[in-house]
This record gives sequence, structure tokens and C-alpha cells, in this order.
Amino acid sequence: MRTALTELLGVDLPLVGFSRSPAVVAEVSKAGGFGVLAATAYRPEELDAQLTWIEEQVRGRPYGVDLLVPAATSDRDPEALAAELRAQIPAEHIEFVRGLLEKYGVDPGDLSRGFGAADGQVAGIAPTGVEALLDVAFSHDISLVANALGPPPPSLVERARRAGVVSAALVGNARHAVRQLEAGVDLLVAQGTEAGGHTGAVATMVLTPEVVRIAGDTPVLAAGGIASGRQMAAALALGAAGVWCGSVWLNSVEDITPEHVKRKFQAAASTDTVRSRTRTGKPARQLRSAWHDEWERPGAPEPLGMPLQMMLAKDAWQRIDAAARAGSPGARALESFFVGQVVGSFAELRPTAEIVAGMAAECAECISGLQRML
Amino acid sequence: MRTALTELLGVDLPLVGFSRSPAVVAEVSKAGGFGVLAATAYRPEELDAQLTWIEEQVRGRPYGVDLLVPAATSDRDPEALAAELRAQIPAEHIEFVRGLLEKYGVDPGDLSRGFGAADGQVAGIAPTGVEALLDVAFSHDISLVANALGPPPPSLVERARRAGVVSAALVGNARHAVRQLEAGVDLLVAQGTEAGGHTGAVATMVLTPEVVRIAGDTPVLAAGGIASGRQMAAALALGAAGVWCGSVWLNSVEDITPEHVKRKFQAAASTDTVRSRTRTGKPARQLRSAWHDEWERPGAPEPLGMPLQMMLAKDAWQRIDAAARAGSPGARALESFFVGQVVGSFAELRPTAEIVAGMAAECAECISGLQRML
Repeated sequence: MRTALTELLGVDLPLVGFSRSPAVVAEVSKAGGFGVLAATAYRPEELDAQLTWIEEQVRGRPYGVDLLVPAATSDRDPEALAAELRAQIPAEHIEFVRGLLEKYGVDPGDLSRGFGAADGQVAGIAPTGVEALLDVAFSHDISLVANALGPPPPSLVERARRAGVVSAALVGNARHAVRQLEAGVDLLVAQGTEAGGHTGAVATMVLTPEVVRIAGDTPVLAAGGIASGRQMAAALALGAAGVWCGSVWLNSVEDITPEHVKRKFQAAASTDTVRSRTRTGKPARQLRSAWHDEWERPGAPEPLGMPLQMMLAKDAWQRIDAAARAGSPGARALESFFVGQVVGSFAELRPTAEIVAGMAAECAECISGLQRML
Repeated sequence: MRTALTELLGVDLPLVGFSRSPAVVAEVSKAGGFGVLAATAYRPEELDAQLTWIEEQVRGRPYGVDLLVPAATSDRDPEALAAELRAQIPAEHIEFVRGLLEKYGVDPGDLSRGFGAADGQVAGIAPTGVEALLDVAFSHDISLVANALGPPPPSLVERARRAGVVSAALVGNARHAVRQLEAGVDLLVAQGTEAGGHTGAVATMVLTPEVVRIAGDTPVLAAGGIASGRQMAAALALGAAGVWCGSVWLNSVEDITPEHVKRKFQAAASTDTVRSRTRTGKPARQLRSAWHDEWERPGAPEPLGMPLQMMLAKDAWQRIDAAARAGSPGARALESFFVGQVVGSFAELRPTAEIVAGMAAECAECISGLQRML
């Protein structure tokens, strides 16, 4: 297929596969799409190892990375910054999470291990941490760098341009799109409310053409609700130059999500997700579980903002994940992960390469079918 | 164009125009689509007059009606039923609405005029009222009868079948779709969360293929987020046999919505709608206004269920609408109406026929453009 995206990235298919699983990223690129590694949770040396491994797999085929780069810069010491933020978490919230874990038979410990500056996600708020990750990313043969949240700082756009790397950004509404275009990004990803992870309230069907209109010559990808060739064709019909898929890989053989979570996904309906602030402080779509029920009970505290809620939830989730892996029924009731409404379509696990090939074939067939309606 | 819908209804375009404005319904059918009159708010004699008028306009071209027919039957006296329901509205809620209207300079009166059994919307809960509306509808040359909420009673499906009238139903999730198929409807409308009015949480992009898969040979229309030819092509790509559009007509010349509300729509962004229970008791998407801000303030009561919230809000909204028409700034701040996220795309008013022709042309052009990507 041929669109502005395939031209820009030099790939066969207008399909970007966004995943935290390096093997998914490699398989998407090998299958003719474009893999993007969600790298916000890595430490620099880990990212270096993963990108080296991906490059051994893709053998010259293009791929990219997604990082959380804050727009504002600071020379604050990450340890001091993390300590300062940690002190802002109200005792009421810590007690609530402690009680929640105990209710479900998960040992809460002292609930502060995840709050340190060395932690990958929290490091994202400390610019020195991000710079180190960027240095690693740009030392590799990446073709695209995406910023997970908010406009990239001018330094990142400049650095990408000098390196011949495409800079991309996710947007959830028209206002975001205008800001990102002003920041100089090369590619916009219009992410609808049905998407997994951080997402806005406007649906892909409405958001995509709106962002395409604003973007002018800048190519736009559609994200959210896209896990099949029919949905891919629909996105192209809306004016997108391609699709950005995240959730669909969670049901792949290569994905690193634990088996018991994958089974929970397979059992879920499209109505079983929730857009909640309880994990990061910003609205993010995830599988609804007992965790969300507890936060919605009368008397539960309001979730904090980002990054405080993320710091509060991080240690709790490490404990829930560990207990669920060990088979704790309470932890399995709480267990969840970020996923979009397409979770309702998950059937048996398939290899990533098969998912990519299946989507591309169905998309082409669907377009030919549309032609016959005229 | 040719799809299962154009075959089923004998129309040129796979486009259903749903509207409370008889002139919009007539213009959609005259332009080659299929107009459906939202008839839940009419008394029988009014409906009779409107359908007679529509038939004079469309001169044999097919059209349909949408009614609110409860699944359960009852021989209760409508007056007694309405009085019984009215008594269930808590004094706290009546006082809250009274205070809200006063705050915005709208005379609340005794806030009970809209609660009577003669009221069209409330009549929908009294089966004798609905039977009278159905008698009127079936005495006319309708080709389709849709049920606005929930599965139709078996008597309605039977009556439609005997009369050679297509029975259609709106569904917001897979469970609804199964129930409607069991009830025997001929046509499903998969309505995504981005739609105006009563709507679920699953987006059109996800819901449409899900319902198509469940529906088997029963044709499915996509609704929600569709106001352009590109969006129409996207819906067809998702497997829909056509589209069901409601919001787009609110920006037509023929629509009966007051000018000041139309201007509010034109100024709105796609992020300016809210899915709220405050007008009917069930989640319905509408333009966000000061009304919704007030219901979300700390201390505001939780909205009641349907039909109590509808009865509570009805008189208030008649007063808000009247005061807004008279130019009251407070009433204009409260003023709102049911509309989907496509409101963000509203530009200047256009004749309905031009909207239909424009969508059909853009859809065809879009499909040809997709073909060139292969």
C-alpha cells in the first residue's frame, strides 16, 4: 500500500505497532509495518540493550521509540525532586491504598519503594533522566521518536531534525494538535477516546478528520479502536495516512503481559474498560477491575494529579502484579492493564506477524468491497 | 450506491436521516436517502398531521418513524400512572432545580406543569399512549418503525411484519444487539458513544464491527460520529450497510431548533459535549452548558432514573427554552440540546438536500481514493 506514511517512513504498510514488548516491535517492522517501542519505563542501560536487540532482529528495517519528554526543562537533582513530590502525597491516600491492598490479601509493605528517582516512570519527570534516555535512543538507528504526553521541547524537535529522525506526537483534541504543529512535529497521531492508555474524550471517528483538517500537509495517523483490517480501512477513509495500533498486540504471542492478564483480556467485552485517573493521575483507559470499583466507592479519595497519583499507585501495582503472578485470588481480582475498547474482539493469541498480515489483507479486501458498492 | 440497506428500503443512498424536524425527514427522502421522524414527543393527532405533510412532500418515496415503545405492557390509566410517578420525585430534587432556575433568572413557576399524562414524552411510559401513536403510524405509508430505547414488544414486531414495515432498533453494546435480534427486529443501528442523545460508552469504530459480527444476515447501520462522506465511507468499511445520522441535520436550514441554539452549536468544539443523565435519567450526549456545571457541583443531588428525571427536567427545560427565546442571558447560558461530537464540524447552515448530496459525493470520492492506495 502507498500513503504519505509509507513514503515518510519507507515501509510497505501504513501500520504502526506501538508496544512495550521489544519482540512485538521487531515483528511489526519485519512484517512490513513500523514498530515503535514504548520506552518510558526503561533505564538508559536497559533501553540500550533493547534497541540493540531490536536492530539485530529487524536488520535495517525502520523502527522508532516513544518517550515521555516534559516540555519544561530543569536542572533539579532527580533524587531531591522525587523526595519533594513524595512528600506531597497526602497520608489519606497512602492509607486508602494500604487498606485496599489489605482487603484483597496483598501485602502493602511500606508502599514507598516505587517512589524513588531511579524508577523509570518517575525518572520521566526529572529531565536529566529523560536526556539520558534520549542520548541512548539517538545513538541507535531509530527512524522516529514520539512524545507520549504533551508537546516535545524545542530541543527534541531540533535534535530529531538534525538526525533525520521523524518526530511524532499523540493528540486527543484539536487544541493539542495546534500546539504540536506549533512545536514543529512531523507526524500527528489522532488518538480517540476508545484507545488504551492516556486518552481524551473525543472518538476516533470524529477526531481523525478534525485533526487531518488542522494538520494541512502534516500526515496524521488514527489511533484508538483499530485492531482489524476493516478498522484500518475506516481510518484511511477518515483521511488518516495510516494507523497507530497499541492494544491489538496485547493479544499476541510475543507480548510480555503475564498470561493471567492476557486471559482476563480475552474474557472481556468492549464495555469492560474504564477511562480512569487512578493509575497515573491523568485519564487513561484500562480494563475495569476491583481496583476501580474500590476507587469509585463513596468515601474513597479523589485521585491525585500526575505525577503524584502515578507515584502512589506504582508500588501498589508492583505488589498486585507480583501477587497475581503467584496466584493470589485477591490480586487477580484487582489485576488490570491499559487496553482499549478493542479488547472485546480478542480471541486466541496469534503471532504478531500473522496479526499484521491479516490486517493488511483484510484492509485491501475491504477497500475492494467498498468499490463494488458504487 | 448499493448495499443491503438500499435493497431493503428501496433507496438510492445508504443514508438514514433521523430528525424531529418533519422538513428534514422529507428532504432526506427526497434527496435519495431515507428520512426517519423522531415521533416520541408528539400527541397522536399531531403525528397524524406531520406524517400526512411528509407524505405530500416525498410523493411515494419511502420514510419511517421512531417511537418510544416500552417492552412491558400495562392497562394502567395514564393519568394515575403519571401521578404515581410524580409523587416519587424527591422534594430535594425539585428544590435543586427551582434554585438552579432562579440563579439564572428563569422563573421556575410551580415546576409541575410538564408532569401530566398528556405530555408526549411522558405518554411514552403509559402504553395506551404509545398504542395510539402506533395506530397513527401504521395508518400511514411508513416503510420503517424504529424503537428508540430497549427491545420492542413482540406485538410491535408482529404488527410491523404483517404490515410489511421494517422494524429497526438502536443498540449501544453487544448485549443489546443479542436482545434485539431475539426480539426479531429486521435492522440494527449500532450507535457509538460519540452520538447525540441516549448512547452507550463504546465508540462507533469498535461497536460497528462487533454488532455486524453478531447480526449475521441482519443488516447493521452505524450511528454516532457520522456527518461527512468520509465518515460515511468509514462506516461502510466497518461492515455497516449504511449510516444513521442525527446530529448533522441540526445544522440544516430546515431544522426546527431555535436559531440561538444553532449558533451555540456552531461555536462548539467536539470536546464541548457531555454524556449526562441530567435530562432524562439515562446517559444522553448533549451540548455542555451551565445546566451541567450546576449538576456537577459538590452538593448537587444525583440525577434520578428514567422516567423520574425526565419528568423533573421537562418543565424546567420548557421554561429555559422559552426564556432563552425571549433573550434571557441566564437562560442562554443554560441552553443546550442533544447533539453528538460531530458538533465540532458545524459551519454555516446548509439545506438538507445539499448536506445529503455532499455526503454521498464525498463518500464515493473517498472510496475511489482508497482504491488508489492499494
